[in-house]
Amino acid sequence: MKNRTIDSYSEFELIKTISKKIPLIYNKNIILGPGDDSAVYKTEKNVLTVTSIDSFVENIHWAQDKQNYFDIGWKTVNAAVSDLAAMGAKGKYITIACNLKKSMLHNDFLQLIKGFIQSTNVLNIDIIGGNLARAKETTITINAVGEINSRVGKNSVMLRSNAKIGDKIVLSGQIGGAAAGRYLLTKNKIQSKHKSLINLFIKPNARIDIAEKIANAGVKCAIDISDGFIQDLSHICNDSHVDAIIEKTSIPLYKKSIEIFGYPKAYEFGFNGGEDYELLFTANQKTLLKLQKSKIVFHVIGEIINRKNNEKYSTISLTDGEKIYKLSQEKGWNHFQNEQ
Amino acid sequence: MKNRTIDSYSEFELIKTISKKIPLIYNKNIILGPGDDSAVYKTEKNVLTVTSIDSFVENIHWAQDKQNYFDIGWKTVNAAVSDLAAMGAKGKYITIACNLKKSMLHNDFLQLIKGFIQSTNVLNIDIIGGNLARAKETTITINAVGEINSRVGKNSVMLRSNAKIGDKIVLSGQIGGAAAGRYLLTKNKIQSKHKSLINLFIKPNARIDIAEKIANAGVKCAIDISDGFIQDLSHICNDSHVDAIIEKTSIPLYKKSIEIFGYPKAYEFGFNGGEDYELLFTANQKTLLKLQKSKIVFHVIGEIINRKNNEKYSTISLTDGEKIYKLSQEKGWNHFQNEQ
Repeated sequence: MKNRTIDSYSEFELIKTISKKIPLIYNKNIILGPGDDSAVYKTEKNVLTVTSIDSFVENIHWAQDKQNYFDIGWKTVNAAVSDLAAMGAKGKYITIACNLKKSMLHNDFLQLIKGFIQSTNVLNIDIIGGNLARAKETTITINAVGEINSRVGKNSVMLRSNAKIGDKIVLSGQIGGAAAGRYLLTKNKIQSKHKSLINLFIKPNARIDIAEKIANAGVKCAIDISDGFIQDLSHICNDSHVDAIIEKTSIPLYKKSIEIFGYPKAYEFGFNGGEDYELLFTANQKTLLKLQKSKIVFHVIGEIINRKNNEKYSTISLTDGEKIYKLSQEKGWNHFQNEQ
Repeated sequence: MKNRTIDSYSEFELIKTISKKIPLIYNKNIILGPGDDSAVYKTEKNVLTVTSIDSFVENIHWAQDKQNYFDIGWKTVNAAVSDLAAMGAKGKYITIACNLKKSMLHNDFLQLIKGFIQSTNVLNIDIIGGNLARAKETTITINAVGEINSRVGKNSVMLRSNAKIGDKIVLSGQIGGAAAGRYLLTKNKIQSKHKSLINLFIKPNARIDIAEKIANAGVKCAIDISDGFIQDLSHICNDSHVDAIIEKTSIPLYKKSIEIFGYPKAYEFGFNGGEDYELLFTANQKTLLKLQKSKIVFHVIGEIINRKNNEKYSTISLTDGEKIYKLSQEKGWNHFQNEQ
């Protein structure tokens, strides 16, 4: 046992190991420590600061030979800021640490910076600091900081652990497009009809545009689709100690993905693909009515139900109207084991 | 020109290129953007938040075969928190992103986490979040967040750009020990008489213990000795548009370093070595008296003087009582060009 490498553990097992060991003892203003998309602490009366750190590694989080550096800058910023959106925060500041390969071209470096700057401009966020170091492979680490205006403390932060039995399960947009795009890019299938899907993968948009609005409408539980729909839903279910039932035909898949790949593959991309950066949240009927009134587009795809047993993990059931299938959380994307 | 790699630019040239391009436009609370040890923004009346991001790469920032993972965890946390100390902040929170090699042993992973936890315990800081990813080489990126209680806004932050003509140049402790330790470790000279120097390199302590105190006593300009004394002093001089004169015999070198290596080498370690994480600051006589009253140990080593010419960089002069030598800032440690 002692000599096992970390590769034989999943990312989530390692995080669980750490989380148990880390005490939060010095600052009474901490609202939320490790375990969700971001950490949260109180900065002043009615203001919570939301902070997240996210790393991106070449040839794991992007394909070095298929994505240009402007797009890599764009994507890493949006992926990092998506963690703020998942909490219902308004984005404020980011700092960026770049470990760069010596062989990187200066022009590529400038393109990367341009990608950082243009994406933060769209998101109305300031880059307030950074760090440069050289390394054997290029990695980008982004700390994103946001704010929540709160009158009710912890209750105004959207948490993975806040799903309630009877809540509807909701998606903020279509899923599986980024995974379809990644597949096309990897297989070098880059025709003009594929461009829109590929673009979903290489230039995603964090849903910071709706994050505050849905939190203000009363949404208490959310996550962003980064690992994959099933994996991310299982995080909600496990952390909230509930189960979920999903209506397969209600899942908003990209039309283009269905057209090119057919249903089974489009569902696979939607279930396990990840990197769509749409928000997955749960809400009661009253909140959904408020969202409708605010003209926010959303898709109800299922319901949070009572956990039926004392199993270690929650169960996610999928129904097509006739049969019910039970899904395993092991199928989701795992950064330590399943990639590449 | 177009096809040059980033390796032909210094870290500081690259940072300068970026800093010019980054606008700070969305948040009026930003006090200080990129360019100093940390960024600063206002969070509430009389409270400034100080934030810094710092990356550490195996075999550049630590010797993988010569330092254990507990010590690596300890050192990276202290190096990151040292950036808060340089601003006069009290440390509050950190988040840590680890990109880990697949071949890393699970036990080493646990040791690394233990190093993070024990060092933050000593510094009274909470680890509130993190990220795990796998990579070809292990890198650790730490975002450190601190606070300054301020009644006078920007003036209460210690900045590199605040040195005033006539200020004394001051060190908070001895320098060159870490570099001597690194030398011994690299050359495999690990006898018991070398242990204390080696320990300065592998287990440094951020001077967060005195940072707030010296800021409160009136120190307005500081930096931490991370790159090397001369390099760090040149940051102060360039950013403050001043020159400096240093009395060579006043520089507090480690006695052990002098004993083992003799004076020329001990001075070399002290001037160019870096990683001591002592604070280098400037202060007027009134402030120095306050520091004495507060029983804070410090060493006056020189004086800030008027810049004599319109050269691109400041001049640092060194006197041994008889002759004056002029030092070039190029001699300092440069992460992109001079290492290894």
